[in-house]
Amino acid sequence: MKCEIITIGDEILIGQTIDTNSAWLGENLNGIGLEVVRIVTIQDVPKRITEALDSVAEDIDLVVITGGLGPTQDDLTKQTLTRYFNGKLVMHKKTLARIEDFFESRGLPMLDVNARQALLPDNALILTNNFGSASGMWFTKNNRVFISLPGVPFEMKGIMNDFGFKQIKAHFKLPFIFNRTILTWGYAESFLAEKLKPWETELRDSGLGLAYLPSPGMVKLRISTKSKDKTIKQKVNEFAEKLYLIIPHRIFGEGKDTLEKKTGELLRLKKKTLSIAESCTGGYLSHLITSVPGCSDYYKGGVISYSNEIKERILKINPGDLNEYGAVSEQVVGQMAKQVRKLMKTDFGLATSGIAGPEGGTEEKPVGSIWIAVSSGKGLKTKLLHLGNHRLNNIRISSLNAMGMLLGEIND
Amino acid sequence: MKCEIITIGDEILIGQTIDTNSAWLGENLNGIGLEVVRIVTIQDVPKRITEALDSVAEDIDLVVITGGLGPTQDDLTKQTLTRYFNGKLVMHKKTLARIEDFFESRGLPMLDVNARQALLPDNALILTNNFGSASGMWFTKNNRVFISLPGVPFEMKGIMNDFGFKQIKAHFKLPFIFNRTILTWGYAESFLAEKLKPWETELRDSGLGLAYLPSPGMVKLRISTKSKDKTIKQKVNEFAEKLYLIIPHRIFGEGKDTLEKKTGELLRLKKKTLSIAESCTGGYLSHLITSVPGCSDYYKGGVISYSNEIKERILKINPGDLNEYGAVSEQVVGQMAKQVRKLMKTDFGLATSGIAGPEGGTEEKPVGSIWIAVSSGKGLKTKLLHLGNHRLNNIRISSLNAMGMLLGEIND
Repeated sequence: MKCEIITIGDEILIGQTIDTNSAWLGENLNGIGLEVVRIVTIQDVPKRITEALDSVAEDIDLVVITGGLGPTQDDLTKQTLTRYFNGKLVMHKKTLARIEDFFESRGLPMLDVNARQALLPDNALILTNNFGSASGMWFTKNNRVFISLPGVPFEMKGIMNDFGFKQIKAHFKLPFIFNRTILTWGYAESFLAEKLKPWETELRDSGLGLAYLPSPGMVKLRISTKSKDKTIKQKVNEFAEKLYLIIPHRIFGEGKDTLEKKTGELLRLKKKTLSIAESCTGGYLSHLITSVPGCSDYYKGGVISYSNEIKERILKINPGDLNEYGAVSEQVVGQMAKQVRKLMKTDFGLATSGIAGPEGGTEEKPVGSIWIAVSSGKGLKTKLLHLGNHRLNNIRISSLNAMGMLLGEIND
Repeated sequence: MKCEIITIGDEILIGQTIDTNSAWLGENLNGIGLEVVRIVTIQDVPKRITEALDSVAEDIDLVVITGGLGPTQDDLTKQTLTRYFNGKLVMHKKTLARIEDFFESRGLPMLDVNARQALLPDNALILTNNFGSASGMWFTKNNRVFISLPGVPFEMKGIMNDFGFKQIKAHFKLPFIFNRTILTWGYAESFLAEKLKPWETELRDSGLGLAYLPSPGMVKLRISTKSKDKTIKQKVNEFAEKLYLIIPHRIFGEGKDTLEKKTGELLRLKKKTLSIAESCTGGYLSHLITSVPGCSDYYKGGVISYSNEIKERILKINPGDLNEYGAVSEQVVGQMAKQVRKLMKTDFGLATSGIAGPEGGTEEKPVGSIWIAVSSGKGLKTKLLHLGNHRLNNIRISSLNAMGMLLGEIND
């Protein structure tokens, strides 16, 4: 089954927005066995929308369209699609009621333009949007399916997760596909590839596929097969198990797991609590931990001790050590982890201190020198990372490494 | 003059790589007066490349193709293009010498596959790549120009900056183009559109274009013109100035500005300092502030008082108020802002407390109820936001609103 993605939006064509929607759709449609053969981005203009629909290649079974469904004047997609598929717009009462509820619950006035979003094609299946006012639409023409979705990423993803993928699986006979995506942290892609060479060769010789999917601080390894032969599925599992034996301490989960989710699950399971003292990561590490629903079960709080004054006055870091070794030192990061644990009365204390950049490095401590530490009843562990000079990457990668270090300690 | 971008690469179609090349090309081609009307991403397969070239719309003057020029076997673009334009591959001596130099200067062995990169079409103008071994190619067919570039971002950008843009400007008569993108915070797109209706109508009647570009917590408004008449440029500025008069407190910058950058600039300019107490935003607000290089000039630190115990013990929130009104209340968020300001001895104290969700709401305080507060020498300001039930969005939007509120106070 072959698929095309059409993105509607001037902001992508003029380079103001990067098209992350298509990447997400590409990954997820591939994951259920569809082959994405083309992604097209066009202007929000009827002529271009019609041209794009006309130019879909003959062998395409599914077209997923995102964007162009906003309430303002520059959005003309809904009208164009409805006309293209020979329907007309009618008031969709269920959707109108949902939009009314949506605005009422937020205490916002509902405007005419909002109500107009309940005008929907009579020739489409309506896919409810639980996160906004623009509905998804499912059209069928000559055995080909067209799905239209809003461009706001969390609304688009919401509709696909709630209804889209289920509907696609029910409608198409998708080929058998079996994947396991194993998540590793702390090794660079090239280092991992070198370490796994014999395993990878054996895996490929067994007719399986392997993809390295790097993202900041982690590498995902996807082992896959498209064969209908069920014994091949077992082979995927066998090679996954072997991988766990080769790099046991560097695997933190599979599939859609995240380090913060796994860390939280383990803390909850072991009934342990966590506090965090951050310097260079400036709140990002706490943000990752608190992005997980229910984190108040184990996360009590944190101190962002950005200035030395706060390190001394609130975290009670020894001023002599701050002077002698500097804020970016093993001595100070260790005290930060111990002190925040003591201050917040938690089982684990996690800390970061480093030079995030792009400026502020010295010969002795260049930009990207970042200390991380974890303190617990078992003692103190510290580690120095040598990263690059990209500020946000340094913040992200050191936060992920600190979580990995914590995970190791909880597991220990 | 109209332009299309074709990106060749399986890694984009399966969502492994996000297409940042097209965004860069879109922005820069627009900047010199070309209108990018379509971006197409396709597989590295001759059939799809030919289909894409065949389906370029009739009114397109320039096609820029990136990707598919690597030395490995899966790259078939060069052969397909040469055939498509009726040429043949010949050894390009100048390029071969350059590739030899390139490998020699890096002390790397040159392989046969590298030498093959000097095999280039005899019907193209060759654009030298000063950063790698795959050359750019400039084909012409029926008055339409096709430029093929490597997919490695810095090589692609290097060829365009060194030769591509100059060549395009020399070849095409490009129109005058002028844009201003004005950034607003705190108003939803539909509310803003309603408020700006008379201004927008007048603007469109003057022959200018307007686009609403929403992203979490903010809406960008792009006013644009393509007329050669220089007085139209003045019109863009006139309408921009009028906009500043209609929503003076909701505009925080233009172009590539961010709320955190503007907040930081203003704090530095006024020599004021900031501390932050976060509950529901869990560190994200501090992360935004500290994502700006040099923020230690004005940001001293923060407390993430996730549990009530930390609110009482470190921020000294009145336990009676916590009991009577709950943590998510005007009383508590106000004390958080005042107390963190006092604790960290800063000019401004910013605070958030709310129910980020997706669970944990009550009838009285549903998920998405988020209080924000700012304390300063001028007193205390508080505000209740009614957001949705998407945890990460609630965290993002309330953080942006808190920064907007702070910006208003600093400006006041």
